[in-house]
Amino acid sequence: MDTRERMVDVTARLLARQGYHATGLAQVLTEAGAPRGSLYFHFPEGKEQMAAEAVRRLGEQLGAALQAKLDGKPDVRSGLQSVARMFARQLEASEFALGCPVATTALEASDEAPGLATACAEVFERWTVVLAERIRKERPRIAGPERLARTVLALIEGALLLARVRRSVEPLRDAELAIETLLEG
Amino acid sequence: MDTRERMVDVTARLLARQGYHATGLAQVLTEAGAPRGSLYFHFPEGKEQMAAEAVRRLGEQLGAALQAKLDGKPDVRSGLQSVARMFARQLEASEFALGCPVATTALEASDEAPGLATACAEVFERWTVVLAERIRKERPRIAGPERLARTVLALIEGALLLARVRRSVEPLRDAELAIETLLEG
Repeated sequence: MDTRERMVDVTARLLARQGYHATGLAQVLTEAGAPRGSLYFHFPEGKEQMAAEAVRRLGEQLGAALQAKLDGKPDVRSGLQSVARMFARQLEASEFALGCPVATTALEASDEAPGLATACAEVFERWTVVLAERIRKERPRIAGPERLARTVLALIEGALLLARVRRSVEPLRDAELAIETLLEG
Repeated sequence: MDTRERMVDVTARLLARQGYHATGLAQVLTEAGAPRGSLYFHFPEGKEQMAAEAVRRLGEQLGAALQAKLDGKPDVRSGLQSVARMFARQLEASEFALGCPVATTALEASDEAPGLATACAEVFERWTVVLAERIRKERPRIAGPERLARTVLALIEGALLLARVRRSVEPLRDAELAIETLLEG
């Protein structure tokens, strides 16, 4: 893996855990084993550009994981249950450090880093599309699969936030039940 | 208002907009018109202590606003509709800078500032209790009003996050409809 790739990978890992502001350039360069001049050589627009690429990578990775979980189950309901449990395991394994890999960065960026905020918005949109397509496949006649997908995403995002704050996977269990109700309603 | 009070007020306003990391001490001192030595004089434990007090203040303010919205309507359904619309107006008036006043700080703190994370957890718990009590008052026989309250809070938090990222109040409108379904379900 070349230096640029390693920098994006390290940034992605740090953003997921600690967000944008806490992720310092020195830490990225050290962990990626990259020389000092690497940032502006590889990312002429600086830290925000590097973070935007890292967010897109996190978005692809989680998008693929969501797709695999949804494809691996016979219906949307059990697919989403499997997604919620994947997040619960990840939270517990990381001592509640790893929830939504993009949420902290998205909130920080929305105030002050428009390029990074755009990358975050694209990532949430991608996840919504993955979910909406799976809903439509199962229920071709449903009205507004995008709206249902967005609502489910909002519920999972909120549950991941509360789960990190409370250091408990209970909000994800509550979300599982609520998703069942929403899919029926 | 004394210096200490002004420092907590300014910090609360900055945390709501930009989170914990982006809120610098110099900015707080300048905006509060406080002399340089004020931080450790008023907050011996430093920035984290000041931020924890600011988070508790934000929690009380929003808790009182939630209570007023819920008390001002004949049923929980229309009370929560009124809450969702309050947030939508606030997002639009602030050009999507002001969503949940505590969410950014809560995510940042959960990784590295345990005292601040505890204050955030208490605030979310307080809001849950306000909502659960209102649900129980309307439906004395409902099973698990706390779980329903937590789920509604997760949905609103997730919708506020997506609304800021997408710069659209649509996620809050979706949440309004989903809350109706959850209250019926």
